[in-house]
Amino acid sequence: MENYIEAAVRAYLQDAASDKPAPGGGSVSALAGALGCSMGEMAANFTVGKKKFASVQKEVEASLARLEESREKLSELIDEDARAYTAVTEAQALPKNTEEEKEIRKQKLKEALKGAMLVPLNIMRNCSKVASESELLAAKANPYLITDVGVCVIMAEAACAAARLNVEVNLKYLKDPQVESQVREETAKLCESTTAAHENVLKKVSETLDA
Amino acid sequence: MENYIEAAVRAYLQDAASDKPAPGGGSVSALAGALGCSMGEMAANFTVGKKKFASVQKEVEASLARLEESREKLSELIDEDARAYTAVTEAQALPKNTEEEKEIRKQKLKEALKGAMLVPLNIMRNCSKVASESELLAAKANPYLITDVGVCVIMAEAACAAARLNVEVNLKYLKDPQVESQVREETAKLCESTTAAHENVLKKVSETLDA
Repeated sequence: MENYIEAAVRAYLQDAASDKPAPGGGSVSALAGALGCSMGEMAANFTVGKKKFASVQKEVEASLARLEESREKLSELIDEDARAYTAVTEAQALPKNTEEEKEIRKQKLKEALKGAMLVPLNIMRNCSKVASESELLAAKANPYLITDVGVCVIMAEAACAAARLNVEVNLKYLKDPQVESQVREETAKLCESTTAAHENVLKKVSETLDA
Repeated sequence: MENYIEAAVRAYLQDAASDKPAPGGGSVSALAGALGCSMGEMAANFTVGKKKFASVQKEVEASLARLEESREKLSELIDEDARAYTAVTEAQALPKNTEEEKEIRKQKLKEALKGAMLVPLNIMRNCSKVASESELLAAKANPYLITDVGVCVIMAEAACAAARLNVEVNLKYLKDPQVESQVREETAKLCESTTAAHENVLKKVSETLDA
């Protein structure tokens, strides 16, 4: 198993494009979310320590710290998703000749699918946080960086939507109605808040560009 | 100037987050577009060479080749954008003590801003192509990979929208009404077709997941 966060960008893109089982859509979503963090952090970094923005310094510093934390988590999820998906393909490859083997395979596959579903769910949770930070930054950070805050929320929203597809496909194979309804409720809320932040921030970006 | 395509994913994210002028929103958009390519290519790579999909082999192979080309271009644009933006900050740093210096600075800045505007425009053109390939793949490629085709179009659409913000902000500073109206016409068309592909493909993804 590769450690993709330390791999070259080109190598990551190549492995994602290949017929290797991982990295796939979940890992790519985590990376897109991390890219969103970076753009928010850049806007914050061009705000803190500047006299002109002294009045918002504390708030923006706190936002920066939260974004750094989300980026760290999303960076871990780039590789966690690849590992979780590999566990699914490994379970699928287990023998199924006897009833006992079939039962073991079924259980292992169920566990692996649940793991593979929880990783993109965790990606969505982090992307929703990033989207929320982008709203703070659009209101408070250095307006010279407003398009970068826009890119932050675009990436967070896209990563959240992309991760959701990976939650959905694993729920489909998992076939556990109780888990399904609980997770669906959470993903709907996460997408709703992220989409709302996306709309608000891009409105603010347009207003700033038109000014 | 770094060669970001060969940098580690973590290092890229770190530099993007920092108060270095580059990589910024344009470079991040190019990377997001390249991630979209990779997801489309993965779906194509799990289709070509498989008996079950022999009837679509040629079409999917051709799509794969086009996506590889777009990924190559978008990969180059990750670094081109960083270079183009650095040229803007260099022009801004030129002396402006005499009238002659002011005139030289103005011209250099104009050239640099035009360059910085053309790079994200080029990113948008490539993302629009990727979105179009995702429509072909959603219809023809191995349906087991349908969520990856979904991630492909989500990334292409987000990258196109993010790159557009970077076109817009450079147009704002460029202040050239003729260039502006011409470029705005093109960006509107590129976003329109990408958004349409996004809608079509995600509808297909939902239908497949619900089946």
